[in-house]
Amino acid sequence: MWVFLNDRFVPKEEAVVSVFDHGFLYGDGVYETLRSYGSRIFMRDQHLARLRRSAEAIGLTLPIPDAQWPDLLHEAMRRNGVGNEQVDAYLRITVSRGEGEIGLDPALCPRPTVVILTKALHPSPPTLSRDGVTLTVANTRRNLPEALSPQIKSTNFLNNILAKRESIAAGTFDSLFLNWREELTECTISNLFFISNGTVHTPSLDCGILDGITRAIVMTLAEEEGLPVKEGHYHLADLRQANECFLTNTSMEVMPVARIDSFPIGDGRPGPLTGRIRARFAASRHRFLEPRPS
Amino acid sequence: MWVFLNDRFVPKEEAVVSVFDHGFLYGDGVYETLRSYGSRIFMRDQHLARLRRSAEAIGLTLPIPDAQWPDLLHEAMRRNGVGNEQVDAYLRITVSRGEGEIGLDPALCPRPTVVILTKALHPSPPTLSRDGVTLTVANTRRNLPEALSPQIKSTNFLNNILAKRESIAAGTFDSLFLNWREELTECTISNLFFISNGTVHTPSLDCGILDGITRAIVMTLAEEEGLPVKEGHYHLADLRQANECFLTNTSMEVMPVARIDSFPIGDGRPGPLTGRIRARFAASRHRFLEPRPS
Repeated sequence: MWVFLNDRFVPKEEAVVSVFDHGFLYGDGVYETLRSYGSRIFMRDQHLARLRRSAEAIGLTLPIPDAQWPDLLHEAMRRNGVGNEQVDAYLRITVSRGEGEIGLDPALCPRPTVVILTKALHPSPPTLSRDGVTLTVANTRRNLPEALSPQIKSTNFLNNILAKRESIAAGTFDSLFLNWREELTECTISNLFFISNGTVHTPSLDCGILDGITRAIVMTLAEEEGLPVKEGHYHLADLRQANECFLTNTSMEVMPVARIDSFPIGDGRPGPLTGRIRARFAASRHRFLEPRPS
Repeated sequence: MWVFLNDRFVPKEEAVVSVFDHGFLYGDGVYETLRSYGSRIFMRDQHLARLRRSAEAIGLTLPIPDAQWPDLLHEAMRRNGVGNEQVDAYLRITVSRGEGEIGLDPALCPRPTVVILTKALHPSPPTLSRDGVTLTVANTRRNLPEALSPQIKSTNFLNNILAKRESIAAGTFDSLFLNWREELTECTISNLFFISNGTVHTPSLDCGILDGITRAIVMTLAEEEGLPVKEGHYHLADLRQANECFLTNTSMEVMPVARIDSFPIGDGRPGPLTGRIRARFAASRHRFLEPRPS
């Protein structure tokens, strides 16, 4: 297994950072996860643009020019034998503040650390999408956007980890976060949708959620499917009265939700409109892939 | 320079962790900073107890038994030539979730990573305490306690770093955080006090602040000094009408605040009661040191 570290590919065993890296000391870094279908990366430029926005939001300058990222990502896939006709690729770019003396001032760190990890991306077990997953409503609240915006994809993941621990303890698929106003937000690594009376609802960005790339595509595809889409401020009661519910993210695509804790959504099985959106996503995703290599 | 890493002391250059360490990938870790006066560590057992509480709050078991920490801390100081009659020591313990596959489940990481860093602790420049420091009121709000309690000393420091960047941009000493209710909380690495009409005020823990060890000592010493102490919910208007203001933490002890942005506290100079508390702290700190080595 090969890891890109700063300026070259190294074997996994040599992919190390100093304990003085502010990514390790302070979680001072940003990341992005991408995937390929075959050899082609999904929404590549959108993910790279978001990485740049996350970095700018914390005052970090990416040390790799925009034009070099695609080649690096493909080289990472080639060296690891993923992102080809046999197997899709998962990719994670991490950019931390880099090594520096102890202290919060970013100027202590002259050079950011860049890491690209990649591995085979295997689809979720088909039973999950067939039966739908169960969510736990976390006691942990979503980060306050004015404290640490969920729109910054940062390596400060403890909020997510605390919620994930709740779902692990409950034996469920994931946790659903409410925000400081008890509004619905998102799960630990995915956006939330629900369908009521034929309308597709999803929490608006000002609820304090990630501006998910798959979320935006699904909103477009639902409208193409003839379903009205509304962003808004919603509560658990809205979700409990919904007919259908699903999650979206880059690697899961569209995942039906069957239950919130022991409470069934609709009849407790994946709904027909969710099925139509899933099918349209599968039929349409080629529109969102980078061009075939020349 | 020697760093304790997991089970032994290594030179700084060899003090590295895998890029798969969840401390690096997710900020999934806790820390504690301690100091010595001469060779004796200040509030040692209280700091170690808080490290344990932070770890428990994120479901992390410290891999080093309680009884071994004091020897490790003193060995770290000895090897680095600090924490002796010539120079006090700064110590930072970091415990991360350790190396593991990508994913939020703590069970992916079989063994936590332990790091002890130490260096010389030089007192703040005397001009700071003579003139008092200036704080900026940050636009960044303090973490929502229900999202990530500031009482967990975690390596998720981006909230603090965003606020620190604001004070750096403003050219001030540090940023003061308000919470989600616009109440006063604390600064990026210190607790806040202010004095009005002879009463010492400090935000209560439920404002979403660290239960500072020096904070608790200062509350005790102020009462010994005959000054009433009140914990409560306060706003900027309370601080602007105050006669005096100061910050506390382990390394600064008691630091007078002269201005909030361009607004002077009292007459814009360190106040007399702050001076009495500082003097009592200096005269009393021997009560809070570990016993002399036998």
